[in-house]
Amino acid sequence: MTKQTKNQPRNVATKLIESHLVSGTMKTGEEIGLKIDQTLTQDATGTLVMLELEAMGLGQVKTELSAQYVDHNLLQTDNRNPDDHLFLRSACERFGLWFSPAGSGVSHPVHMERFGKPGKTLLGSDSHTCAAGSLGMLAMGAGGLAVAIAMCGEPFYLNMPKVMGVKLTGKLPDWVSAKDVILEMLRRHGVKGGAGNIIEYYGPGLKGLSAMDRHVIANMGQEMGHTATVFPADDAVRDFLKQQQREGDFQRLEADRGATYDLHDEIDLGKLEPLIALPSSPGKVFPVREVAGEPIYQAYIGSSANPGLRDFAVPAMMVKGRQVREGVSFDINPTSRQVLENLVELGHLTDLLSAGARLHQTGCNGCIGMGQAPATDQISLRTVPRNFAGRSGTDEDKVCLCSPETATASALTGVITDPRDLDMSYPVFDEHSTFYVEDRNIRPPAKHPELTVVEKGPNISTLPTFEALPDSLKAPVLLKVGDDVSTDDILPAGSRILPFRSNIPAISEFTYTRLDPTYPERAKEYQDTGSLIVGGDNYGQGSSREHAALAPRYLGVRAVIAKSYSRIHWQNLSSFGVLPLSFVTPENFDSIEQGDELSIEGLVETLKAGDRVVAKNTRNGERYELTHELSERQVRMVIEGGLLNMMRQELAA
Amino acid sequence: MTKQTKNQPRNVATKLIESHLVSGTMKTGEEIGLKIDQTLTQDATGTLVMLELEAMGLGQVKTELSAQYVDHNLLQTDNRNPDDHLFLRSACERFGLWFSPAGSGVSHPVHMERFGKPGKTLLGSDSHTCAAGSLGMLAMGAGGLAVAIAMCGEPFYLNMPKVMGVKLTGKLPDWVSAKDVILEMLRRHGVKGGAGNIIEYYGPGLKGLSAMDRHVIANMGQEMGHTATVFPADDAVRDFLKQQQREGDFQRLEADRGATYDLHDEIDLGKLEPLIALPSSPGKVFPVREVAGEPIYQAYIGSSANPGLRDFAVPAMMVKGRQVREGVSFDINPTSRQVLENLVELGHLTDLLSAGARLHQTGCNGCIGMGQAPATDQISLRTVPRNFAGRSGTDEDKVCLCSPETATASALTGVITDPRDLDMSYPVFDEHSTFYVEDRNIRPPAKHPELTVVEKGPNISTLPTFEALPDSLKAPVLLKVGDDVSTDDILPAGSRILPFRSNIPAISEFTYTRLDPTYPERAKEYQDTGSLIVGGDNYGQGSSREHAALAPRYLGVRAVIAKSYSRIHWQNLSSFGVLPLSFVTPENFDSIEQGDELSIEGLVETLKAGDRVVAKNTRNGERYELTHELSERQVRMVIEGGLLNMMRQELAA
Repeated sequence: MTKQTKNQPRNVATKLIESHLVSGTMKTGEEIGLKIDQTLTQDATGTLVMLELEAMGLGQVKTELSAQYVDHNLLQTDNRNPDDHLFLRSACERFGLWFSPAGSGVSHPVHMERFGKPGKTLLGSDSHTCAAGSLGMLAMGAGGLAVAIAMCGEPFYLNMPKVMGVKLTGKLPDWVSAKDVILEMLRRHGVKGGAGNIIEYYGPGLKGLSAMDRHVIANMGQEMGHTATVFPADDAVRDFLKQQQREGDFQRLEADRGATYDLHDEIDLGKLEPLIALPSSPGKVFPVREVAGEPIYQAYIGSSANPGLRDFAVPAMMVKGRQVREGVSFDINPTSRQVLENLVELGHLTDLLSAGARLHQTGCNGCIGMGQAPATDQISLRTVPRNFAGRSGTDEDKVCLCSPETATASALTGVITDPRDLDMSYPVFDEHSTFYVEDRNIRPPAKHPELTVVEKGPNISTLPTFEALPDSLKAPVLLKVGDDVSTDDILPAGSRILPFRSNIPAISEFTYTRLDPTYPERAKEYQDTGSLIVGGDNYGQGSSREHAALAPRYLGVRAVIAKSYSRIHWQNLSSFGVLPLSFVTPENFDSIEQGDELSIEGLVETLKAGDRVVAKNTRNGERYELTHELSERQVRMVIEGGLLNMMRQELAA
Repeated sequence: MTKQTKNQPRNVATKLIESHLVSGTMKTGEEIGLKIDQTLTQDATGTLVMLELEAMGLGQVKTELSAQYVDHNLLQTDNRNPDDHLFLRSACERFGLWFSPAGSGVSHPVHMERFGKPGKTLLGSDSHTCAAGSLGMLAMGAGGLAVAIAMCGEPFYLNMPKVMGVKLTGKLPDWVSAKDVILEMLRRHGVKGGAGNIIEYYGPGLKGLSAMDRHVIANMGQEMGHTATVFPADDAVRDFLKQQQREGDFQRLEADRGATYDLHDEIDLGKLEPLIALPSSPGKVFPVREVAGEPIYQAYIGSSANPGLRDFAVPAMMVKGRQVREGVSFDINPTSRQVLENLVELGHLTDLLSAGARLHQTGCNGCIGMGQAPATDQISLRTVPRNFAGRSGTDEDKVCLCSPETATASALTGVITDPRDLDMSYPVFDEHSTFYVEDRNIRPPAKHPELTVVEKGPNISTLPTFEALPDSLKAPVLLKVGDDVSTDDILPAGSRILPFRSNIPAISEFTYTRLDPTYPERAKEYQDTGSLIVGGDNYGQGSSREHAALAPRYLGVRAVIAKSYSRIHWQNLSSFGVLPLSFVTPENFDSIEQGDELSIEGLVETLKAGDRVVAKNTRNGERYELTHELSERQVRMVIEGGLLNMMRQELAA
């Protein structure tokens, strides 16, 4: 419960919510609507967003600023990715967005560098949008459709979160950096530990963390399933904006003295040590020293989880005049053109290359399975945010998450190495070194959008339309899955699949194929009559890609019944008209078998009345009480077949 | 006829052949055997070469130097490419090769930088191996099997070529560079104009061409179907080797005064202008000014056809302080770690990045369809050697070949632009600027090869074995194709297919699918009984990949009947036991229809006797006289089912 009057001392999260509240009351768990100031879209999710804007008949975006990035699908092996890039560029002209072309960098650091503003809200169709919490923003990932709706000037709805205050004290020791802070949070709280919470960091320990360090921590809050992570906008944020030549965008935003939090934790930074998340979960965290000595295939630097200049400069200083161990693939992935230019300018790039680094193009790259897949059964140390099995592109992968210091130390020795064990003094990177600001290659909204012709390549199809929810549903459970199923499991990423993102019939052929290659074929039999999925806890964790809801819906899924849901995917399901139900009695999960047929009568009326849904298992006659956490608005949305149907009707009215 | 006694003045090509001749006489068209001093393999063809070495039971390579490069399959989207890299690395240890890992660069410039030596022979399993002719080497591309055989110390066999002397006079005007010289050769002689010839450049015009300029010209001699291109080893070569800190490897090699040539041409460099090869043939060459003004999507700098530091430095100097036209993808592909390090060192990389360039990893990249595919129907200007339709990865592509100057000028304006029309003075690049030599990241042969365990990932399969040629063949013509069918048509490259290169059954599923998606299915019906292909002129032009012979053979092709062949593919066919036949009466081509069944009796005896083969068309009873250009040794090889069968028997004996 974070409801507080204006006279009570308030934390940063509460201030951000209060200043953007357009509906609801700030009672934990109740739906609130927030005004969205800025949006962020990337190319993997953005093409669909643009098709949605088009389908809804939008004129110009109604946010203060919307920016579209091309950072995901950079491996152009046929026409589809470049056609999408042209489509996005022309759609940005048409709808009034900023456009950041391929080569300019990963959305999150670039947005922070060029556009982030303390005190603002940011909604992004990428789960790591939360990274901008580093600047004192309320920044949240959401499905592309929710972002499209926000671009239309509509509020973003969510359930009022709790605020977890994490007090930071002390100062990070040598060889320990921001990544180890968030790995410590994951070690303590696990991959579900942030569910329903905004995580707010405060306390004297903040002094030692730059804005970009805070980006690292905010970014991977997503791996704890948080709603958002916020930091105050203090002097470190002012320094950052000043360096970006945007000091005018600074406004101080700090917790009031005496502010309280719903939940509490505290980290003494001085007591942290280098940590590592072992395969294949960001929550499987151990001290590096406990696994030291294992031979590695790869050390990978980059991604939005370690995007700052220092995250590359420190490795460069570590390898200067040395060679990485022969046989180790030392992969450098600059996160923005600005970072790359500064690495060149400061001499760091030369040191990395001479040491044996492979330099890759600026972008998301291997973090999302676009290149640099490791060899079979070989250990890859990465500074990326996620190590779900297979996400690297290699089925039998062994990806570990760690700091740039740990990855680089291991590249030098060829085995997993605690960087404190190197015979080397910790390189000091001066955050205030002369800085090259890159702002020439990102295009502002067009002056004459009316002149724009939207360019659609042959692989960009119109969106399918879905019918309303039936009142009577008799449908088979075509798939039963366990806990922690990720959106990567539901619809894998990777270079083979992502190019179909603007072509729903084509991309749906990959639905659930990682868990069951027969699924798409089996589902298509029930495409018109409907089918069901039964899941365990934390259903739909991971990437925010809405195709993980859209593709199953296209194949006929009308409801998921799970023990619990990951927030973004839960929202995506309801947005596309898939009813996300939960067991009142979790043990019922065990009595449903894959292939069972469930029958639900009077579904629409039950939902409207706010009653529990009852499903009958025709195999054994058992009856399951099912509930949901949908708001009235969301219930209406699911009944009408999804948000796009609802918006279409509103705009037509 | 280039037979000359030692007292007669000799050209460079003749000297190179004479000094390596181990069998045959130097009569035009007759088979000669040459000692091979060095070999070069890249990863796309090298995995098969290593499997062949393994199958033949080789100990250590018997060449003076063999080097294996990883430059083609750098897009690691699953385990297959990285598994291959590990396999190659361990195989190099095992067999005594140098190993150049991913990130070190494209084989041809790196080989030239680190290993090329005047007066030596080089055989490479990459069609652009000829580039090393720039140093006064006899450098030839061949199928991987021929290279494997050379590594075993066996000679390389070819038909004695003619030598075409091309006298260069004058000096290149501003804005005209080496690429325009070879485009002029292609304009004059077309894509078959070099067939059966060694092209030797000489004359006073050579003075203005650096060794790396000559690499550009020698490299694309391949696009004329030449046997090799040679330049003398003169002061420019000494300068180059000195810059590479290898002056000790220099030895002068020039044509004797009064040396003659079998064929003659002459180019006044001073009269050349910027040229461009339009889609989709390197031979479709026009002056840039005639096509100026067409909007472009992409300007692509890099590849072995423009690999030198100057080929990146000049574009950098052109864009310094400017921005490329908004919307143009300006793709920079450094060709070696050394080039990249020098670009950084000299400040050129910063200028490229600031102007809006996308910097890609060091390697072959888009030149072989590994990334940077252009958007549908959009013009891409590239400094690469080839623009065969679809090779870029995009089916509906429009790739043009041109100099770095023309590509960069067009990037600045957004339309095809003759660089002379820019309001800019031609930047002078000093070839002697301080130079950073990179030789730390390429690994010498192992000291203890016996300790090596060869690492084979799950996608690396053993080679299929093929049976001997049947004496009686009754087989359907499963495909009839026209002129200039390329090995890209026979077995496409690109990221979807190349990863299967060490898995013949898997890769054969892509055989001829670009021309006829039903081909693999239809061929499999006749996998055991045999099938035929009928082709036009210049059958099998382009890339040297031997999979283009191996995959059809695996699917059952026992003979090709074509009007004429491209040399390397012709050799690959016979090496893998596919009989390459030609029509005595070319008009017979017209009377064969796809689906006809041809019957050949007494095939083995006819071949052994050196008689013409007669095929009877069972549909209309027509009889076709067929011939071949195989040597006695090659006839024996085809009869036994290929070279591997023959070598196996020899080594077993």
